[in-house]
Amino acid sequence: MFLVDLNCDLGESFGRFKLGEQEEILKYVTSANVACGFHSGDPTVMRETVKLALDKGVEIGAHPGLPDLVGFGRREIAITPQEGYDMVVYQIGALQGFLATFHEKMQHVKPHGALYNMAAKDSQLAEAIAQAIYDVSPELILFGLANSELTKAGERIGLKTAHEFFADRTYQANGSLTSRTQKDALITDYNQSASQVIRAVKEGKVLSQQHTDVTLRADTVCIHGDGENALLFAKHLNETLEKNGISISAIGKWGSK
Amino acid sequence: MFLVDLNCDLGESFGRFKLGEQEEILKYVTSANVACGFHSGDPTVMRETVKLALDKGVEIGAHPGLPDLVGFGRREIAITPQEGYDMVVYQIGALQGFLATFHEKMQHVKPHGALYNMAAKDSQLAEAIAQAIYDVSPELILFGLANSELTKAGERIGLKTAHEFFADRTYQANGSLTSRTQKDALITDYNQSASQVIRAVKEGKVLSQQHTDVTLRADTVCIHGDGENALLFAKHLNETLEKNGISISAIGKWGSK
Amino acid sequence: MFLVDLNCDLGESFGRFKLGEQEEILKYVTSANVACGFHSGDPTVMRETVKLALDKGVEIGAHPGLPDLVGFGRREIAITPQEGYDMVVYQIGALQGFLATFHEKMQHVKPHGALYNMAAKDSQLAEAIAQAIYDVSPELILFGLANSELTKAGERIGLKTAHEFFADRTYQANGSLTSRTQKDALITDYNQSASQVIRAVKEGKVLSQQHTDVTLRADTVCIHGDGENALLFAKHLNETLEKNGISISAIGKWGSK
Amino acid sequence: MFLVDLNCDLGESFGRFKLGEQEEILKYVTSANVACGFHSGDPTVMRETVKLALDKGVEIGAHPGLPDLVGFGRREIAITPQEGYDMVVYQIGALQGFLATFHEKMQHVKPHGALYNMAAKDSQLAEAIAQAIYDVSPELILFGLANSELTKAGERIGLKTAHEFFADRTYQANGSLTSRTQKDALITDYNQSASQVIRAVKEGKVLSQQHTDVTLRADTVCIHGDGENALLFAKHLNETLEKNGISISAIGKWGSK
Repeated sequence: MFLVDLNCDLGESFGRFKLGEQEEILKYVTSANVACGFHSGDPTVMRETVKLALDKGVEIGAHPGLPDLVGFGRREIAITPQEGYDMVVYQIGALQGFLATFHEKMQHVKPHGALYNMAAKDSQLAEAIAQAIYDVSPELILFGLANSELTKAGERIGLKTAHEFFADRTYQANGSLTSRTQKDALITDYNQSASQVIRAVKEGKVLSQQHTDVTLRADTVCIHGDGENALLFAKHLNETLEKNGISISAIGKWGSK
Repeated sequence: MFLVDLNCDLGESFGRFKLGEQEEILKYVTSANVACGFHSGDPTVMRETVKLALDKGVEIGAHPGLPDLVGFGRREIAITPQEGYDMVVYQIGALQGFLATFHEKMQHVKPHGALYNMAAKDSQLAEAIAQAIYDVSPELILFGLANSELTKAGERIGLKTAHEFFADRTYQANGSLTSRTQKDALITDYNQSASQVIRAVKEGKVLSQQHTDVTLRADTVCIHGDGENALLFAKHLNETLEKNGISISAIGKWGSK
Repeated sequence: MFLVDLNCDLGESFGRFKLGEQEEILKYVTSANVACGFHSGDPTVMRETVKLALDKGVEIGAHPGLPDLVGFGRREIAITPQEGYDMVVYQIGALQGFLATFHEKMQHVKPHGALYNMAAKDSQLAEAIAQAIYDVSPELILFGLANSELTKAGERIGLKTAHEFFADRTYQANGSLTSRTQKDALITDYNQSASQVIRAVKEGKVLSQQHTDVTLRADTVCIHGDGENALLFAKHLNETLEKNGISISAIGKWGSK
Repeated sequence: MFLVDLNCDLGESFGRFKLGEQEEILKYVTSANVACGFHSGDPTVMRETVKLALDKGVEIGAHPGLPDLVGFGRREIAITPQEGYDMVVYQIGALQGFLATFHEKMQHVKPHGALYNMAAKDSQLAEAIAQAIYDVSPELILFGLANSELTKAGERIGLKTAHEFFADRTYQANGSLTSRTQKDALITDYNQSASQVIRAVKEGKVLSQQHTDVTLRADTVCIHGDGENALLFAKHLNETLEKNGISISAIGKWGSK
């Protein structure tokens, strides 16, 4: 049997500023990454988001970001590994506070934006982030880019680690994502996206832009929740995967793999 | 046997901005209120502060404040009770994250500055804050102004509640602190301060500025950590209390009272 | 000849968070109040907004707010008059920076949200804000609630002062706005709104909820820019005023009145 | 006749957090770089700092930084040149607001911390910052690292540009500062520092760590204001320069050079 987790970013509003179509996307995913106040999200949004995800039976993870609200956590900041450790502990803890009020547990942690990308390449930062997660709770599952420094660090430290696959992005021969500055970075055709996911889940392979296969794991697939198209795509992917014998299930509920 | 807890504010630095004489004051207190990033404190300061307090055997509490770094959480902000609830959950959780990395537990929660003062008078806000603490963990002890709306709300909800007494402030006949805008608000004589604490702990009474006795509980006494005088006073109070048969002990370690 | 200025809030986006239908509303107003980074607005949004307003020939004013992004400047903060002075100078200056890059001048200043409401009632804060505006430039026009402490302070100090009238709010006999907590606070009927504005501009009167006339000036009318209805109303009001012999013109372009 | 400007950073406090010995250092410098609220400084601190510098007859410049209070603007953030342009316009404008209230003009702009270092190497960012300064006012003087991309951009655009020299840092053969991660980065001997400055001002040369001379201009020398030693050094340098025939004078007051 094939299993895959579908995750989406959630709780990205801030005060009066609203982002995302929260309720709709929750129909199609199994894990939600909740913003923790640094790149987005405020305490009230976090409580509402946690409640919403719990009501829909979606597992909850922390989505810690860089302290850059105006840049939405998407601009690299030259933090030290220790600063990375500290800001991840802080943000996981803050979200755990809300889960505690519902007597619920956090499933996973997925760094956001530039922090995710920096940790994919920088082994020291990756180690610090993985250690932070482990130190708060060794039961937490680390979500990171497949084959990245972050997933490697998680596995070295002893965390359960989910390799993340991107449905709508193309890959390079070395396993990295094609940069968004390149023309062919994005896949806009729903069927092509779904096929790429199915092959990654079933065969552990993706065809690179250089026409060679890259070997990787696709434990969890990132789904975007912004805009009408995103919702249609989420629905389409969800249905196509099930039709192709892939069960969609939150990774924390899988047996040992 | 008489018992009293001595508490101080800690971890009030922010980035390169340093405040307080952290190590020294920890010799004389039993409970530390750690800033959680809203009025002061950043993730790195929080980790360092938690480590320092644990090393000295001092119990740790969250010191949640209003989101007002430039005003140090001392300016009232017209938040709703729900916003108060949410910001307290968030800040307790964030600090619990660091305690978890040391496999330690939080003892108490003491709101900071304007949040403390607002909650002393506003029963709805008090209720929301007490509920937030209870919802995160019913084991936490709420520190609030003696006889205030905050301690009342804590007791109503079922929290263990510590009534806080001020060594260096005078009291009014109705039990409130004399406003700092009044000339006679502060007690600067060490012996007078210590005597006031001793009577409050042993007899549950304090002489008001109107020469009538106010009945109150003095479970924990707030000690300031800024400046040389504060340290000398802390040392003096600590020694004087012990000489007068009052044991200084973290409230979380007391038996049922 | 009757003249009225129509103003709207602009530039309320922040980073990736978008608010308002900027381009559309500019067709119907003569003065734009641009957020300056405290309650909303970031440097990039400010530059884009200034450019947009200039392109449409709309006069530009600063819209300084309280430092409360998560609360959108709508929660009262117990600032001192000196802090009010300082934050208004800062925000006016920041927006003037962008106007300077276009070789243009600022027309007016309208405090935002809770700062506007606090200054309407608190004469000391009103005085500090009016003085701040005067000190930066005595040519600036102060926009404040008609008959409020803020317009009084502006007039006392020697600023040209625009009394602001609300098209969609009802008034009390004492000239204050009916609180939003009351059922009858809002006027939703377009024609009733327009009639109220026409009478205020032509006769200097508005009928209160107590059926007595309030005497006031209506130099500028606040138009909201959020939502489709707001745009339709703006268009309707604009056309109705012109039909009734009221010229819509930026107040800075009026002759002496 | 030889002339040099001595500059220092000022107004780096924030709310209750105090940094620097403001009054003392102003005795020894001719130009003050005032923090503008992004890496440090708040509106109240800015007003007080501007007043202090004006009282002492010290020329005032803006010291715009990256939006990173917790990192004190010392961590690189991957901003776009446009974002750099916008944040510099904003911060210059905000400080100009305070200068306007004193009927005074700004002399210069010196980017702070990581923004200064990034602009020294990145020609696009340097161009954007220089353009921002020019667009706000072509009369402003740009302070940048001698021979850097920033001074080059300023000169290309047509700004009067001050090449900054560091008294307490060693230089590499290519004209760059020795990295602080190297042992020999700092000069702690007062006489050696003073000699290095005298030669740079008089001969336009500094001996690199590779024992070759670097040709550069030393229009302004950065003096630190933190700590007792800094003040003693400032006094020593000030006196030594005067004794060696170098007049210390604010660069804005120099004739054409």
